[in-house]
Amino acid sequence: MKTPRVGFQGELGAFSQEAARRLLGETIKVVPFQRFEEVFRALDEGKTDAAVIPIENTLAGSVHENYDHLLRFNFRIMGETNVRIVHNLIVAPGVRFRDLRRVYSHPVALNQCLDFFAHHPGIEKVTYYDTAGSVKMVMADNVRDAGAIASEVAAAIYGGTILRREIEDDRQNYTRFFLLNGKRRVPPAVHAAKKWKTSLVFSTPNVPGALFRAMSAFALRDLSLTKIESRPLRGKPWEYLFYLDFIGREDDPKSQNALMHLTEISDFLRVLGTYPRGD
Amino acid sequence: MKTPRVGFQGELGAFSQEAARRLLGETIKVVPFQRFEEVFRALDEGKTDAAVIPIENTLAGSVHENYDHLLRFNFRIMGETNVRIVHNLIVAPGVRFRDLRRVYSHPVALNQCLDFFAHHPGIEKVTYYDTAGSVKMVMADNVRDAGAIASEVAAAIYGGTILRREIEDDRQNYTRFFLLNGKRRVPPAVHAAKKWKTSLVFSTPNVPGALFRAMSAFALRDLSLTKIESRPLRGKPWEYLFYLDFIGREDDPKSQNALMHLTEISDFLRVLGTYPRGD
Repeated sequence: MKTPRVGFQGELGAFSQEAARRLLGETIKVVPFQRFEEVFRALDEGKTDAAVIPIENTLAGSVHENYDHLLRFNFRIMGETNVRIVHNLIVAPGVRFRDLRRVYSHPVALNQCLDFFAHHPGIEKVTYYDTAGSVKMVMADNVRDAGAIASEVAAAIYGGTILRREIEDDRQNYTRFFLLNGKRRVPPAVHAAKKWKTSLVFSTPNVPGALFRAMSAFALRDLSLTKIESRPLRGKPWEYLFYLDFIGREDDPKSQNALMHLTEISDFLRVLGTYPRGD
Repeated sequence: MKTPRVGFQGELGAFSQEAARRLLGETIKVVPFQRFEEVFRALDEGKTDAAVIPIENTLAGSVHENYDHLLRFNFRIMGETNVRIVHNLIVAPGVRFRDLRRVYSHPVALNQCLDFFAHHPGIEKVTYYDTAGSVKMVMADNVRDAGAIASEVAAAIYGGTILRREIEDDRQNYTRFFLLNGKRRVPPAVHAAKKWKTSLVFSTPNVPGALFRAMSAFALRDLSLTKIESRPLRGKPWEYLFYLDFIGREDDPKSQNALMHLTEISDFLRVLGTYPRGD
């Protein structure tokens, strides 16, 4: 069996790569892209066998762009995993903490480590295009007075030394990733999941109580929701898309009945996938 | 009456400042802060009279951090407005398009203008800490071969010339902002709102159908929801916070009944504010 090619957005060493490793194991060929759309397109064109995309973050919310791509392209969600976003201070080997004058990283990462910079006023934060990319640069140029902030995976890939671990201000920073498969099926590493989840998107007619009736399809069958989120449809005031996840396999009779019931009530319904529940 | 001091996160010329202008008019003193927490703290300590904070973006989702601050600090939401995020190419006066070799901006803004850069491969994108800050820098240094990407307000504040308008890839990019008031009441500019909204956060016991029952408090009274979003509570599997907005004033009898009903059903309930519905 050929090593599966797995697309993701970001540089090598991005958190998406960590998610890919968790979902598919070590023997994968990761293929980085600059934009999410390119990740989906490559999968559609068979240039990759699978894709790993972030779908929500505990601090930043749902990645609506990827819901849009999921609706546009017709891939199925095959798995999910939650990755804790840990920021590490990474330097070239031999560089000591007291040598540091500057630290490079993506501004979002720098902004999630403000306590660190407040405690070390002698170290300047400098923006860089990408977290993993900042490690790559520090290593390639063998920089002796600056470090980078990125994941442990980025340190390993580029051979950097981690000087300080977990320097992020908020430890409750998790990103949930989906595994998507293309034409060639790539099974998730965990098979024996007892619990399954099903993800769907739907919209309801613009009448009071429409969402309440839609949710009755699940409540009346004791199906537990793990996510419900409304998203206003721009240019269509009072119309909404809903993202919904529930515990259950799509092919369970109870799920099938709930989905048939929801079809009666909704204007639009798409099941995005049914997959083993992640850790 | 003293000019109200209004705190926001970002540099002068940030989109939050545009939101503040819409919510409170032109005669305000804007006070920029680096972090959202500082915006809340300054309001708490009376260093500002009001605050304007982003709460959700059509592409990026809810700003959970600001929901957290809303729960921690006890300010009331006094108003809302939706600002379309428009990116403009801004240069020092006299600089022509053909002179440009580089364009500076926050990486999120650069990433939202990739079509522009694809059409102009001779122009390099360079990351900068802040959108408005990149205009400030280009103007202060009178840079002749580079531009910045930022809001129209940033161009006006720093005296830059807009060479290209609306260079963002996706026009459906809106951010919703809340106006918060401190001890000194700052009324929103729009008084005669016919429609009001009420925002609240609640959690339910961990039993199937709990959310469904919670929503019945609104559906049974024909109150329309404009937002419902679940947020997993980290470290407490199967427990969720819900963000909910409905159309109605908090002191309407129907709203009061719904809130009393919801109190029976929920573990925790906090009304964040009732305010005129924004455009």
